[in-house]
Amino acid sequence: MGDIFADRVVVGSEDRLAEMFGGDLGNEGIKFSAGNPNAQFFPVTEMKQAFNHAIEAYGNQMFEYQTVSGFSQLRRQLTTWAEQTAQISTTPANILLTQGGQQALDLIGKLLLNAGDEIVVEAPTYVGALSAFDQYDPRYYDVALEPDGLNLTQLEHLLQHHPGIKLLYTVPDFHNPTGVTMSLAKRKRLVTLAEKYDFLILEDTPYRDLRYKGKQLPAIKSFDRQGHVLFVSSFSKILMPGLRVGWVVADQAIIQRLRKLKTSSDLETPGLVLAALEQYMEHNDLKKHIAGMLPTYRSRLEAMLAVLDETMPAEVEYTRPEGGFFIWLTLPDAINVQKLLNETCIPEDKISFVPGKVFYAHKDQQNGIRLNFSGVSEEQIKLGITKLSNSLRQAIMLKKVKIAL
Amino acid sequence: MGDIFADRVVVGSEDRLAEMFGGDLGNEGIKFSAGNPNAQFFPVTEMKQAFNHAIEAYGNQMFEYQTVSGFSQLRRQLTTWAEQTAQISTTPANILLTQGGQQALDLIGKLLLNAGDEIVVEAPTYVGALSAFDQYDPRYYDVALEPDGLNLTQLEHLLQHHPGIKLLYTVPDFHNPTGVTMSLAKRKRLVTLAEKYDFLILEDTPYRDLRYKGKQLPAIKSFDRQGHVLFVSSFSKILMPGLRVGWVVADQAIIQRLRKLKTSSDLETPGLVLAALEQYMEHNDLKKHIAGMLPTYRSRLEAMLAVLDETMPAEVEYTRPEGGFFIWLTLPDAINVQKLLNETCIPEDKISFVPGKVFYAHKDQQNGIRLNFSGVSEEQIKLGITKLSNSLRQAIMLKKVKIAL
Repeated sequence: MGDIFADRVVVGSEDRLAEMFGGDLGNEGIKFSAGNPNAQFFPVTEMKQAFNHAIEAYGNQMFEYQTVSGFSQLRRQLTTWAEQTAQISTTPANILLTQGGQQALDLIGKLLLNAGDEIVVEAPTYVGALSAFDQYDPRYYDVALEPDGLNLTQLEHLLQHHPGIKLLYTVPDFHNPTGVTMSLAKRKRLVTLAEKYDFLILEDTPYRDLRYKGKQLPAIKSFDRQGHVLFVSSFSKILMPGLRVGWVVADQAIIQRLRKLKTSSDLETPGLVLAALEQYMEHNDLKKHIAGMLPTYRSRLEAMLAVLDETMPAEVEYTRPEGGFFIWLTLPDAINVQKLLNETCIPEDKISFVPGKVFYAHKDQQNGIRLNFSGVSEEQIKLGITKLSNSLRQAIMLKKVKIAL
Repeated sequence: MGDIFADRVVVGSEDRLAEMFGGDLGNEGIKFSAGNPNAQFFPVTEMKQAFNHAIEAYGNQMFEYQTVSGFSQLRRQLTTWAEQTAQISTTPANILLTQGGQQALDLIGKLLLNAGDEIVVEAPTYVGALSAFDQYDPRYYDVALEPDGLNLTQLEHLLQHHPGIKLLYTVPDFHNPTGVTMSLAKRKRLVTLAEKYDFLILEDTPYRDLRYKGKQLPAIKSFDRQGHVLFVSSFSKILMPGLRVGWVVADQAIIQRLRKLKTSSDLETPGLVLAALEQYMEHNDLKKHIAGMLPTYRSRLEAMLAVLDETMPAEVEYTRPEGGFFIWLTLPDAINVQKLLNETCIPEDKISFVPGKVFYAHKDQQNGIRLNFSGVSEEQIKLGITKLSNSLRQAIMLKKVKIAL
């Protein structure tokens, strides 16, 4: 067989998601590379009951073909959830249930992107979104992230020079990989820009309910007047990723078309899983479940910030998130993070992290590090980050010596 | 917002799958339009136990992110299943679990098809496959179906004139919509053609275990020597469609690339569903379950053939399937089936069927009817098919009178 594969397979061949995970650390290793929620919090017993309830309540109907949009009772619950947690007023007909947030990103890419179409992403941005969009071969423009979110001056400049821009992708709450949250003022201003320059905003926010300090902000979608915002969230981080349930809120014209694309992609999400989730939410308090996880995650965030403050060399900058799973380190440009990971951190320090390069559409930035704090104990954080600080200090010193010579 | 959608959304806008279902028939109506398995056979109690077993056996691991390929124990079981039911020797590494057969079709389209790439489909063919491939905007070539499967003379002629053809899509067992099965000789010859003209065969076979008479044939894949065949099957028709579990068997180079595309599309299928299926197969006899359904389906097939033989006008031809869910009627060209459905069958006869047009890549054939026999009782079959025969006789007579005038 010759070269039989479609062009998109070559485009996507770098396999951004697979690159995220470091080498073998052995049993003693400390993984700051993960992005998983803490499995010890999974409400396994309650979820088992929920599956049983769903089968008892809905019987063999649950195992039939159902609806593309997904179990309507769950969509109804999500309208309340959206109102209470994100200040979004919506209806079940404006919601599409998807196979995790990832399928929402893929379907939205499929809906909007011809090869060469122009989209804006944050620099850095979520690697899974790049992986989904890559399949449709768009033209990416980067906009820098500031401590309060996207640099909107830079964005507007870009929009003025590229009127064809269709879509902006943002993770406004406890951003993956940086932990940054977009300010209230920027959320409002971003919607105004979308109206002025006529593009869509894809607001992807799986972490928004995992806030450890400060006050919850309304979703960008809550300021949407003309249907410019597609809101995507998921149960993966607040409940369990293995359920593979995500959701989109958008105008009905968008939802209808996404529904058609989902029909062609996989017909529908397993109805029983959606019904079990509905039963879980009916018989349990999801907000209370989330509240129960926050103290652990908060302590770990604080522990990591404390040891970073204490041990990191002055040349290394890092973010101070108020929620989510990640802290982002920015190193002096001269340091090659991938080399450091492969040659020192994994083999000697027995620690892993995700090197920043994969989070850039153009893969042209080598000096970032994503650290996960949610999946490691405070003890591991102290030990591992101290080792990382020492290795970074040494690498920076060596560079300086080389430059001086 | 202007015309923001990708070209593929326009290409796929006819929504082939949605067109399949007729209007409202009321409570008394008889639906020959369905394609569902009979829900009364669903082993609900056993499946409930299987979900409980899976949670008890594998605990919170089931709710974690897992593997893109899908639960390895289930893939191991499927190697045995493939050997026993289809004479395919394979390994777990050659299997990808998908979100129903539909996702397998979508991922294979995504893997192989650039816009304008040439593929061959049967005329008629499965509407869901067209719906998946449409998204990638290929160039379709039709090949006629004969009572023993694809017309291979016509196929070879096509291959000689279009050396760029990459892919042939076939449903060799109890074909949807016609019920036709490809002969053993044609299976072998098709593989030889794939080797000679260097194209891939997508063998889609969700019905192959639902044979009511005659002898099971080996899969086309069983004759594959050089990796030209991608075998796709599903649990939707033999167990439950709501589980949304399908599977692909192919060379590892193909599986690896499909896995990447699945990662970008939805990361993975819910692990718990796969583990429950594995537990179901571990503690129950799936073959026995299937054997338990066959007598009912067989009686319905025979009942429908009997009433067709008895009542259909001589001008109407129909297939005589040995398994599956469907019989296909071919009417005189002059009859517009869609019009007959909308103006007579639904409003007057209170019966529905799927008009043939949706099953053709070029939608240029108006004279076919797909009848489902698996979801209707023998009584409904007698009543409904007699009505259909009368309406067809009348329509044919009217056409003759018009032509004579």
